Amino acid sequence: MPDAPQSLRLTTPLPLDSGGELAAPTIAYETYGELNADRSNAILICHALTGDQYVASTHPITGKPGWWARMVGPGKPIDTDRFHVICANVIGSCLGSTGPASVAPDGQPYALRFPVITVRDMVRALVGLLDGLGIERLYCAIGGSMGGMQALSLAANWPERAARFLLIATTARHSAQNIAFHEVGRQAIMADPRWNGGDYYAGEAPDAGLAVARMAAHITYLSEDGLTEKFGRRLQDRPDGTQGAKSFGFDADFQIESYLRYQGNGFTKRFDANSYLYITRAMDYFDLADEHGGRLTDAFAGTTARFCVVSFDSDWLYPTSESRHMVQALNAAGAPVSFVELSAPFGHDSFLLDVPALDRVVKGFLE
Amino acid sequence: MPDAPQSLRLTTPLPLDSGGELAAPTIAYETYGELNADRSNAILICHALTGDQYVASTHPITGKPGWWARMVGPGKPIDTDRFHVICANVIGSCLGSTGPASVAPDGQPYALRFPVITVRDMVRALVGLLDGLGIERLYCAIGGSMGGMQALSLAANWPERAARFLLIATTARHSAQNIAFHEVGRQAIMADPRWNGGDYYAGEAPDAGLAVARMAAHITYLSEDGLTEKFGRRLQDRPDGTQGAKSFGFDADFQIESYLRYQGNGFTKRFDANSYLYITRAMDYFDLADEHGGRLTDAFAGTTARFCVVSFDSDWLYPTSESRHMVQALNAAGAPVSFVELSAPFGHDSFLLDVPALDRVVKGFLE
Repeated sequence: MPDAPQSLRLTTPLPLDSGGELAAPTIAYETYGELNADRSNAILICHALTGDQYVASTHPITGKPGWWARMVGPGKPIDTDRFHVICANVIGSCLGSTGPASVAPDGQPYALRFPVITVRDMVRALVGLLDGLGIERLYCAIGGSMGGMQALSLAANWPERAARFLLIATTARHSAQNIAFHEVGRQAIMADPRWNGGDYYAGEAPDAGLAVARMAAHITYLSEDGLTEKFGRRLQDRPDGTQGAKSFGFDADFQIESYLRYQGNGFTKRFDANSYLYITRAMDYFDLADEHGGRLTDAFAGTTARFCVVSFDSDWLYPTSESRHMVQALNAAGAPVSFVELSAPFGHDSFLLDVPALDRVVKGFLE
Repeated sequence: MPDAPQSLRLTTPLPLDSGGELAAPTIAYETYGELNADRSNAILICHALTGDQYVASTHPITGKPGWWARMVGPGKPIDTDRFHVICANVIGSCLGSTGPASVAPDGQPYALRFPVITVRDMVRALVGLLDGLGIERLYCAIGGSMGGMQALSLAANWPERAARFLLIATTARHSAQNIAFHEVGRQAIMADPRWNGGDYYAGEAPDAGLAVARMAAHITYLSEDGLTEKFGRRLQDRPDGTQGAKSFGFDADFQIESYLRYQGNGFTKRFDANSYLYITRAMDYFDLADEHGGRLTDAFAGTTARFCVVSFDSDWLYPTSESRHMVQALNAAGAPVSFVELSAPFGHDSFLLDVPALDRVVKGFLE
């Protein structure tokens, strides 16, 4: 189904919110399904913090199916028999688009010389990609979590580029608690001596710090009830075969400990620690109202698109109250918006998992 | 008000739940107020994870007032004009009681040779202290958070040792999410090369890892609303005097970032990283029902004490549902128990902070 790895190099410098610019960044992307003759069936899917462009194709490092393969494909809710789906790696990331691990014009990796970017900068690069692909107006822009922030930023700053916006498990601003969890992750990375001020590409990467950052973040993606149901206080079998007994040591006794260590270690194989710093920073800076004079409604002034907002009742990272805040602003701006809070046990990660009600909402909104 | 630093060395080995024992451990404690002639006015206050015996006296390292000075003292809710208050450092900790930083019989610090302990082991040591002080039966045992776990363990295993138990912001078992956050902290410490398998007392301590552990834990002590109210998305002034502007770098831009870094760094000055490993492990192992055949009610069979359980509506670490679970078990055991959920904005930390309603509950229960 997927084409060969694709990328597009922007031919002009990308201006950044910091005041700087990024010279001719590369945007790596994947597409699925055919673009129709009048170029009216394109859907842009924006990925989350640690996501990538492999939305419905095998990940080149892990060999796992695409992160939203259950949602995107022939006959699926985002039907590639009908739509041309585009998903691009955000700038600052590490799966082909220009980021801190990329080689700078001087032949060395950028590392911390890479400019701090914002969600709007990511979207500016995506708009450059759409320009390069000759797509004037999307049928829909879709995103969950940080992907939703990108879709929101597109709606606010380039409202003519999409007819529909589907915003899932997201927020128009990062809360103090959101920032706090990200800061713990950044400090864990920076505390790792191998991080070395970001300059580690010639040696060993700060995997220990990055794993801790991932573990802390991973807890916030799951609900307490979901953790209790999945793991509870169950002990794992000991290496010597003993079942369900405490070790009275510091090995992983509880299944939840083992699971978290696995998540942390696995993550380091596919992600760059500096990218984690840059992307979390971009998310923490995200405050759509602040970008538009302080009133969120003003971010959507004059929009002609349709909106759909979805939250999950067990998501404590971006809770339903944040979605309601967006919906109220969209209503006040006169935008047609539908809103649904879905019941699902998986916490924030619900948008990635088996929630049939989400499938129906997505399919319905794209009709 | 406080006496000089006091400690008592147990004259017999302390048996441990792991099957091992601790030879003649030292218990460091503080007392406040006079013990009356018939020794009937003693109150034991049990401290939380990173607490200590300096409940109402100046901390010897930080120079700050005692951690519950607002609650304990002449004329205060725990009135030292009336009660003899005892607060001891738990074994495994690092403020004078025997722990991993203590010198083992071979003249070297225990480090990871210190046995893994449980909450019941901590309480067994406290009972040894009460024996040494000649206190047969406490007027009340009081604890918040891990202190509440100790009070619960005393009620379950040595029910004759107190006439009243006051359990604040606590739980009868650690949930999967509780364990997960602790595991992140332990992994942060162990990821620090200076941790060196626990063997760092001759050199530099793993302060970077311990600070990250503290930061992650600290977020769980506060409520999201409290964080929003206290910090929101407010930026701090830059070192160059610029007010409220993003740095587009990785310094602490947001006040919440600066606050967390301060909390993390400050903590390393007063706490031992190995103690953090041991005490979090003890808390994760805590499951009072499991210790008593699986039914929490059976833990309280035949108790003749009075109980008071207090939770806070903004505490998401040990939410009200956990307190209700305890209260139901106490009711089923026929124990007289009063229960109140207090409204306070400070999350789990509410038990330490200015919540006048808690003062009234504590004072009332001790009448």
